[in-house]
Amino acid sequence: MIDGSILIGREARQRAPKFTGFDATNGDAGPQYFSTAGNEDVADACLLAASAAESFATLSPEARASFLEAVAYEIEAIGDDLIANVMVESGLPRPRLEGERARTINQLRLFASEVRAGLWLDITIDPAMPDRTPPRPDLRRMNVPLGPVAVFGASNFPLAFSVAGGDTASAFAAGCPVVVKGHPAHPATGELVARAIGRAVAACDLHPGIFSYLPGASNELGGALVADPRIKAVGFTGSRAGGLALAAIAATREEPIPVYAEMSAINPVILMPHALNARAEDLARDFVTSLTLGAGQFCTNPGIVIAMDGPDLDRFFAAATGAVTAASPQVMLTAGIHLAFTKGVAALRANPNADLLAVGPAHSTCGSAALFAASAEAFASDASLREEVFGASSVVVRCKDIDAMARAIGGLEGQLTATIHLDPEDEPTASRILPLLQGKAGRILANGWPTGVEVTWAMVHGGPFPATTDGRSTSVGTLAMARFLRPVCYQDIPDELLPVPVKHDNPWKLPRRIDGEREPA
Amino acid sequence: MIDGSILIGREARQRAPKFTGFDATNGDAGPQYFSTAGNEDVADACLLAASAAESFATLSPEARASFLEAVAYEIEAIGDDLIANVMVESGLPRPRLEGERARTINQLRLFASEVRAGLWLDITIDPAMPDRTPPRPDLRRMNVPLGPVAVFGASNFPLAFSVAGGDTASAFAAGCPVVVKGHPAHPATGELVARAIGRAVAACDLHPGIFSYLPGASNELGGALVADPRIKAVGFTGSRAGGLALAAIAATREEPIPVYAEMSAINPVILMPHALNARAEDLARDFVTSLTLGAGQFCTNPGIVIAMDGPDLDRFFAAATGAVTAASPQVMLTAGIHLAFTKGVAALRANPNADLLAVGPAHSTCGSAALFAASAEAFASDASLREEVFGASSVVVRCKDIDAMARAIGGLEGQLTATIHLDPEDEPTASRILPLLQGKAGRILANGWPTGVEVTWAMVHGGPFPATTDGRSTSVGTLAMARFLRPVCYQDIPDELLPVPVKHDNPWKLPRRIDGEREPA
Repeated sequence: MIDGSILIGREARQRAPKFTGFDATNGDAGPQYFSTAGNEDVADACLLAASAAESFATLSPEARASFLEAVAYEIEAIGDDLIANVMVESGLPRPRLEGERARTINQLRLFASEVRAGLWLDITIDPAMPDRTPPRPDLRRMNVPLGPVAVFGASNFPLAFSVAGGDTASAFAAGCPVVVKGHPAHPATGELVARAIGRAVAACDLHPGIFSYLPGASNELGGALVADPRIKAVGFTGSRAGGLALAAIAATREEPIPVYAEMSAINPVILMPHALNARAEDLARDFVTSLTLGAGQFCTNPGIVIAMDGPDLDRFFAAATGAVTAASPQVMLTAGIHLAFTKGVAALRANPNADLLAVGPAHSTCGSAALFAASAEAFASDASLREEVFGASSVVVRCKDIDAMARAIGGLEGQLTATIHLDPEDEPTASRILPLLQGKAGRILANGWPTGVEVTWAMVHGGPFPATTDGRSTSVGTLAMARFLRPVCYQDIPDELLPVPVKHDNPWKLPRRIDGEREPA
Repeated sequence: MIDGSILIGREARQRAPKFTGFDATNGDAGPQYFSTAGNEDVADACLLAASAAESFATLSPEARASFLEAVAYEIEAIGDDLIANVMVESGLPRPRLEGERARTINQLRLFASEVRAGLWLDITIDPAMPDRTPPRPDLRRMNVPLGPVAVFGASNFPLAFSVAGGDTASAFAAGCPVVVKGHPAHPATGELVARAIGRAVAACDLHPGIFSYLPGASNELGGALVADPRIKAVGFTGSRAGGLALAAIAATREEPIPVYAEMSAINPVILMPHALNARAEDLARDFVTSLTLGAGQFCTNPGIVIAMDGPDLDRFFAAATGAVTAASPQVMLTAGIHLAFTKGVAALRANPNADLLAVGPAHSTCGSAALFAASAEAFASDASLREEVFGASSVVVRCKDIDAMARAIGGLEGQLTATIHLDPEDEPTASRILPLLQGKAGRILANGWPTGVEVTWAMVHGGPFPATTDGRSTSVGTLAMARFLRPVCYQDIPDELLPVPVKHDNPWKLPRRIDGEREPA
């Protein structure tokens, strides 16, 4: 079913140099050789995407929703071959990957329902007032797609944040053609999903240019894609260095374009005193479960805990130490990620400002969890303690009082999530802490753990810089579509020439706002 | 009523060096000396704004709307002293300025009603599903203000796009404190309005930090303001060089921030063949009226006309030549703008690719309208023909057929507006042209003129780069608020700690979306 091709619309191309995937468990090269897309492929994919943009933008909501559902269907239809490939390439266990596939498919279906609901168009009409002095023209506003979107998948969610992941689904939902730069950590998985999307495009009889797939292992490929003048926006999930590099390319184009890079976060967890007193051991156990989930390879992994020093924190330490020490080492996504994690933990172990509390059993090729403690003073002065170590490593900041906790929060950069554990007795103090967290993160949660991101209408998976390059957005949930839209106002355009959503008789029965008032459904 | 102060919240400061305004008509220095804000003033204003941010963000919609109405009231209460000052400083005639004052006041009132309507919060709730496996948490999303906003007013709308103009009104409406960098072309007007805002802040008993005013004539002042870490977004209307300079500062901050710069546009007007044939003379007359309105000093001034060559275009030329030749020279906003306009027209006159069709009566200190023609080939190859000349200057591009017209449109940069004049017989061809225009501009209008921007729910005053630095936004109309908001999701937060708009019993009776469905009003 796969042959290592570059997929430019309907066309499959082979091109040297070739590369292979790897078995995450043992590092063995995979059997399949994959093409590396070159500048010509980038240009052809972008040209084709641009030529598909208008027909895709003007599809009815029903037709675009059906296409999203067809993508979901085709991914499901790959069957177990998909799970088998992604298990090898990611080292992630089957139940997690079956769950991730369900999430990927449900996400496409949620966007389909959102496209049909039509609120994303934000249709807003100010009818003409011919008798006013001067006469008011007829004004009709709606959102239109930005145009072709470049998508860069992440290694840690080879399905849900990759070829047909949230960025692709939301760009399609918004009406934008997509050119995916395949992630070299899961090339077989990537091609399987890319071919499934291609079948959905064909089944729906859409312009083949709405999707192309460019495998490759070089940074140059990604840079060329972002630099292509036909690309109008970028969705990225990955490292801070990678996201900033793409943002810099996008900003220096002749026409700068928006980059939505979801990059790095340490996702602070605040343990309020009464909660800590009431359930230090339970909190420690659940914390280590969240910390070690998927070998800690989550954007929302709890990398920092902020708590008040004292006997209750000592109880938390004792229980967490037990849990970390007992945590089995886990296969990591790639040798490179394992190496970076090992180096990050070694740097913390060598850092006099960080005290090693616990480390999991040593393993030469797997990631072992690690837990450190630091004083609030060290945390304030040593920026290295606030840097993300991608994997199951976390630092507990010991604070002498609530003021010190507030200062530690104040010193954090932008985050994807911020968690607070509190009991009712903590609420008066927590009311001081919550506004601080709101200023730092896209999602604030109480008495839970940040790993696990629901795909819903209300979700925000985003946050102030450097969690993302654009804190006004989310990459998960229906609002993710808004990243790829811009408003256009039509003034006195004859009805025959108006786009269908803003025509006078509302043939698609979309929700509208007229003279400031919503029309009844 | 004015004394040249810097206004930091309630505090008025005097600081050297001082500068004066000028009488636009004769270039005479005004009687009042104005302080130049320095780095200490910038830092103090931003610190005060940051300290006011939370209380302003959490105001009820009713309280924030009342404040916007108080600002409108206080501006109106200045009375004729405001008009008298701005007439001197801008050289604009009384009826235009009375209209602009009404627009400024009505804009504040429209934002007040929009704040009350509450749709801008985009309240979205996914109730908990405790019985699901795994249980779904309670998720509540709403928009929150970004924080303190720096506003840079424009010289060409000393009221509607300046101290209490659209950027300030929309930032206040979104719940953001505002620090205005005063425009040196109208310092007396600026201080009068700034003091009116200060009175409104006091009358509503709000934190004084929500508004500060920094007069000054230096670029350093503006740069320091954008660089201040407490500033979270920038609104700017002005030149391309100015907007890009501020955007560059914002992008290289430790925490980059969004810059909404409305910069430059040549606002193409497309004359379709049947319309041109049916009413060449009327089109020419109305075009010159739009071109010369306010001495052509509008962001939406029609700087380019694209039409098919032939006898009908010759009729248009003849009538337009008559109208331009008869157009009285007009006082321009500043000596600098007059000089830049004179140089721009001189460059076109010296350009062998541009044929001078008509020029208004010469005048040493006023702007005289100028109209040029160029071939489609010259327009394609000579970028200088596509550059904005701020003032009443326009270039007509002669095309041999519709394909050439489409190519000329395709060669344009992003625009604020694009206008098409058409008759019913033009519609089949126009249906090809409209998607091209939609790709280039934020507002598309038919059989009208781009000057004149309604302040309504449906308006878009924005467009792809370089019309603005962020084509996903508008600086006029209620949607302008969206520029200063970001979404936050609250997961399982106890009701007592939730922000009021997302509390379970909806005490402010705001519109909400629950599990994807809008609640009935």
